[in-house]
Amino acid sequence: MASKQQTEEFGWPSVPRNRSNIPSKASAKTTPADVVFPEVWPKSEVVKKAQEYVHGALPKETYNHSLRVYCYGHTIVTQHFPSWIASASEDFFETWALTCLFHDIGTTPENRSDTHMSFEFQGGFMALQQLQAFDAPKAQAESVCEAIIRHQDPGETGTISRMGQLVQIATEFDNMGWQPHLVHEDVIKRVVEQHPRLQWSSCFSATINAEVQEKPWCHTTALEGFAEDVAGNKLMAPYE
Amino acid sequence: MASKQQTEEFGWPSVPRNRSNIPSKASAKTTPADVVFPEVWPKSEVVKKAQEYVHGALPKETYNHSLRVYCYGHTIVTQHFPSWIASASEDFFETWALTCLFHDIGTTPENRSDTHMSFEFQGGFMALQQLQAFDAPKAQAESVCEAIIRHQDPGETGTISRMGQLVQIATEFDNMGWQPHLVHEDVIKRVVEQHPRLQWSSCFSATINAEVQEKPWCHTTALEGFAEDVAGNKLMAPYE
Repeated sequence: MASKQQTEEFGWPSVPRNRSNIPSKASAKTTPADVVFPEVWPKSEVVKKAQEYVHGALPKETYNHSLRVYCYGHTIVTQHFPSWIASASEDFFETWALTCLFHDIGTTPENRSDTHMSFEFQGGFMALQQLQAFDAPKAQAESVCEAIIRHQDPGETGTISRMGQLVQIATEFDNMGWQPHLVHEDVIKRVVEQHPRLQWSSCFSATINAEVQEKPWCHTTALEGFAEDVAGNKLMAPYE
Repeated sequence: MASKQQTEEFGWPSVPRNRSNIPSKASAKTTPADVVFPEVWPKSEVVKKAQEYVHGALPKETYNHSLRVYCYGHTIVTQHFPSWIASASEDFFETWALTCLFHDIGTTPENRSDTHMSFEFQGGFMALQQLQAFDAPKAQAESVCEAIIRHQDPGETGTISRMGQLVQIATEFDNMGWQPHLVHEDVIKRVVEQHPRLQWSSCFSATINAEVQEKPWCHTTALEGFAEDVAGNKLMAPYE
């Protein structure tokens, strides 16, 4: 039976969920890079529309976080996973931008209280519908949706899409300073300069606590010690 | 901050994902019961509409599986979790019926090939939209959706909704014969008599393999040895 078209440009191909494909501290070729946001940010119609929509919906702190995650992910792929963008760099980064923009859309006070569902599922569903309304191809909107649903689903077994893995590691990097060997300190400095953290560590740990308080059944509870790890983000503390 | 209304009748209250709330083999008060399907199956409008929709969409094997899962879950709650239905038994079992009907809607060849998304996520969203089109309250449709999205998400950490836990243990029971101490053998005999397995073990293990083959990134890969465990279901082998 033929496998479904990989739609590589939208980040669908599978990678191990346990991250055995990610360079270790010893093997990573991490270098400084002058990340200039307007140069790396996609300029397509769908990204323009999505950005306008999300910019109007997210608090400033969450919006800045989303753009930092984009920059870190862009750098991580460029330096560590060039094969992911060897043939469809524009489409891949367009999909990545859409994923970053929508990944925390479910965490706003309005969207949190509008649903009983875990914020990742609500956000994935919102992205799926909104992006198709913005004329994104279905396979692209679905890649964004799938990645958002699984962006807090790390684990040792099975596989995940490239887009899902990227949003996991890039958000963990900005939220908790995890896997710091993947991004050079100079890149952090350039990125926070352009999209300031605005006390993101305390802001997001409060959001996590609110989600769990309002929805005691929510999927965020699967991540033990999450709020504490976010609040105690030492890597990013100098930039708060 | 007040927690979101528990909407107990739709199965939202949280339980431990590690199932420490489930009776052990030593403590479970499992008894025979004459489960007569028309007596336990809800008769409300929304269930009628959902049943008609799903009956037209699912292969016979999957449809029968869905109704067996309903019966096993109904028995499990009645015998082991009476507090879940102490105040809203009709609404709870209505929500449970809707969850059972839709939980594998994403596994049909048509729905599988219609999307790149993992079948649980596709199925969850189909349920969310279809049930609201059938005039189910939003909080009920969302409970069904959340449970379907997480029905293959067992684990040791955090919490899950009652509806999510129930669909996990009831499907594991029918699919793999797990936690056999929760349902008396006499109940199995009555249930398979009314909704025959039609070689479900080989049928569903083939479906699992097809999902993974078509979508190498899919969430089903998180369950190691799943297809083999389903194919090797010893508890249900006499009833295939």
